[in-house]
Amino acid sequence: MDSINIKKLAKELNLSTSTISRAFRGSSDINKETKERVLSLANELNYEPNHHASNLRDQKSNTIAVIVPEIANNFFSQAINGIERIARENGYHILIYLTYDDFDKETSFIGNLHSGRVEGIIMSVSGENKNHDYLNKLKNKNIPLVFFDRVYDDIDTSKVTSNDYESSFSATEHLINNGCRNIGYLVVNKNHSIGKMRMNGYIDALIKHKIDFRDELIIDCSNDLPQNIEILTKAFKELKPDGIFASVERLAIASYHVCQKESIKIPEDIKLISFSSLEIASLLNPSLSTITQPALEMGIEAARLLFDAIKSKESKNISQHVVCNSKIISRQSSAKD
Amino acid sequence: MDSINIKKLAKELNLSTSTISRAFRGSSDINKETKERVLSLANELNYEPNHHASNLRDQKSNTIAVIVPEIANNFFSQAINGIERIARENGYHILIYLTYDDFDKETSFIGNLHSGRVEGIIMSVSGENKNHDYLNKLKNKNIPLVFFDRVYDDIDTSKVTSNDYESSFSATEHLINNGCRNIGYLVVNKNHSIGKMRMNGYIDALIKHKIDFRDELIIDCSNDLPQNIEILTKAFKELKPDGIFASVERLAIASYHVCQKESIKIPEDIKLISFSSLEIASLLNPSLSTITQPALEMGIEAARLLFDAIKSKESKNISQHVVCNSKIISRQSSAKD
Repeated sequence: MDSINIKKLAKELNLSTSTISRAFRGSSDINKETKERVLSLANELNYEPNHHASNLRDQKSNTIAVIVPEIANNFFSQAINGIERIARENGYHILIYLTYDDFDKETSFIGNLHSGRVEGIIMSVSGENKNHDYLNKLKNKNIPLVFFDRVYDDIDTSKVTSNDYESSFSATEHLINNGCRNIGYLVVNKNHSIGKMRMNGYIDALIKHKIDFRDELIIDCSNDLPQNIEILTKAFKELKPDGIFASVERLAIASYHVCQKESIKIPEDIKLISFSSLEIASLLNPSLSTITQPALEMGIEAARLLFDAIKSKESKNISQHVVCNSKIISRQSSAKD
Repeated sequence: MDSINIKKLAKELNLSTSTISRAFRGSSDINKETKERVLSLANELNYEPNHHASNLRDQKSNTIAVIVPEIANNFFSQAINGIERIARENGYHILIYLTYDDFDKETSFIGNLHSGRVEGIIMSVSGENKNHDYLNKLKNKNIPLVFFDRVYDDIDTSKVTSNDYESSFSATEHLINNGCRNIGYLVVNKNHSIGKMRMNGYIDALIKHKIDFRDELIIDCSNDLPQNIEILTKAFKELKPDGIFASVERLAIASYHVCQKESIKIPEDIKLISFSSLEIASLLNPSLSTITQPALEMGIEAARLLFDAIKSKESKNISQHVVCNSKIISRQSSAKD
């Protein structure tokens, strides 16, 4: 409730403004009858206590923020379900902010969260290679921050990631073992730390198996399906890959569409494996081999780290790094001839 | 910024507290130099203007809330993308709240939104057959509300729905025309208005084609995959349906798993059609026939109605109802023998 309304109520009831405020905060140092008089008149006049403002005072909003690049993505929607499960156990709500990979949105959201709207933040980042000073302000405000999946290495805070390098190495080796020699690597943003780590796993597996790395087999894609279908149709025709490693689920989907359209047979003509949290990978035609991040568990771990920090003041300065292992599930799309 | 900090700054700079407040609000009635002195000292002392509080005053948070039951659901994640597109065009952020179909969460979220945190609300509801008085308070606060997909019929506000009855009628007729006589209807909550309308479409199509309606063919499922697999395995064995109409996407997915596990052939043994916004329905084995709601468009329409209400005070009392038509896409899963 703003101060004008507090003053009006105080005048009407012949009480001090601080008594009115205390009535709304539910203070125990004013008597029950006074409290009821205040609340009933406020109700009558349709005045609402400003929960946010009073929460600012006692530092309890019982809300955490989850900032992610997108939700039309099975990894993030499952991770959010994990976060929500732990938040609910702790009696907290979650608020979801979508950046759509726009760094300006990220900084603007964080700016809005400084003032006590939330008690902690879980974020998958959108602005690598940018200045991240705005995040240090959260520390001064005692708002803990946990990164998951996509992180900033220059910010010292707890984080949950998966073993991207190792699983990419194994996935590439799986394609090589099943006969591939000309493996395309599909990526949306190769400058993301995750994109880089996955690419390094791919490159090192090629080196181990004495296959030359060819730059043109790194195929830059976008987040747009029609655009990706165009890019991949061209790439498949020109480069004739016998294997595809998709670093993001939507690029595997685009590859399926291209193969269907161009009558390219999976796995006979092209073998395919992809990072994917798609719950129906086994129902695709053919079933899709996946590197599956434990999305739900990563969300749960991130939320646990956050609530540890919210609840125990001592641990706030200890940054933990939890690494969850992805699982390679070999299905029809990458099967040996 | 709370009033204690405002007072400290005022004292330090020998200015009135109202000048400090105005400096933070960016008022044009104080000179530039004074404004800079205030902001620079505040910055030095690590004081943050409380954006929320000042936004309360001028009633601009440039934020809208989107309340949905879940996001691990292609319909909602696509609808949210539509809402976000229009919000972005209007210079607004969106905040997403997940109810997980819990009515208490819905009322608690709405309670938190009374106090100026957001300028409007788009909601797909979770508590039919409950008391919805808490929503009328939004009107008094001039916070417009738009329903989409799931609505409360007793609340007079703008809404966007799809033609659930007609498309369910057509989908059932499609199965009948392709030879089905013993059609199971899969539903999660048959008391939802949407569940009811879809079921009525199914029943009326049976009646038109002189097929007896049998109550046991209405199969109650849940939101949990393992549980649904159990329910459907049993139902398929006992009832031996030759057609399945899944009123929710996840029930089609569960049916595929059951058929795979039990070696039931789609479409030879069971023909299947489902409400679904799955972008990869055409890649499933076999490809899935769908009733596809225009999710993105429904989100766009809902956001347009909301911004109309936010921007024009006159139209606030006019409730519009936009009905978007779903599309039946016939694929392999319901093909004629």
